[in-house]
Amino acid sequence: MKARITVTLKNGVLDPQGKAIEHALSGLGFDGVGQVRQGKVFDIELTGADKAKAEADLKAMCDKLLANTVIENYSVAIT
Amino acid sequence: MKARITVTLKNGVLDPQGKAIEHALSGLGFDGVGQVRQGKVFDIELTGADKAKAEADLKAMCDKLLANTVIENYSVAIT
Repeated sequence: MKARITVTLKNGVLDPQGKAIEHALSGLGFDGVGQVRQGKVFDIELTGADKAKAEADLKAMCDKLLANTVIENYSVAIT
Repeated sequence: MKARITVTLKNGVLDPQGKAIEHALSGLGFDGVGQVRQGKVFDIELTGADKAKAEADLKAMCDKLLANTVIENYSVAIT
């Protein structure tokens, strides 16, 4: 079983990396670029076959390690 | 217009961060975790309305700045 976890900053949280990318893109001549926000993606292989357990485990992984839930949101997608 | 760019390592490219996460997850007691691969996600706001131009621009942004196309793949999704 494969899962993808996407971790992004919550709205309102300053994203200096995103700001830097905005400036770099306009410096490269890309006009029409508004806000840029950077996040993380984790592709995880799981050996079990129980989707419900996998979903619960993945959420616990986010809460404990993969996301800082004070400033970040996460979403879990099992494929 | 909003777009999401996902940048992930190509198969076969060593991912030390992914390896570190694998070990940390097993250390936290999560069994059944196979391979973990970490990537980046960029949420970009675009002011124009021409989807074809936006797609071309986004691919050019990846080729020039957001992805190292020697070791990384990218995918572009316009919402």
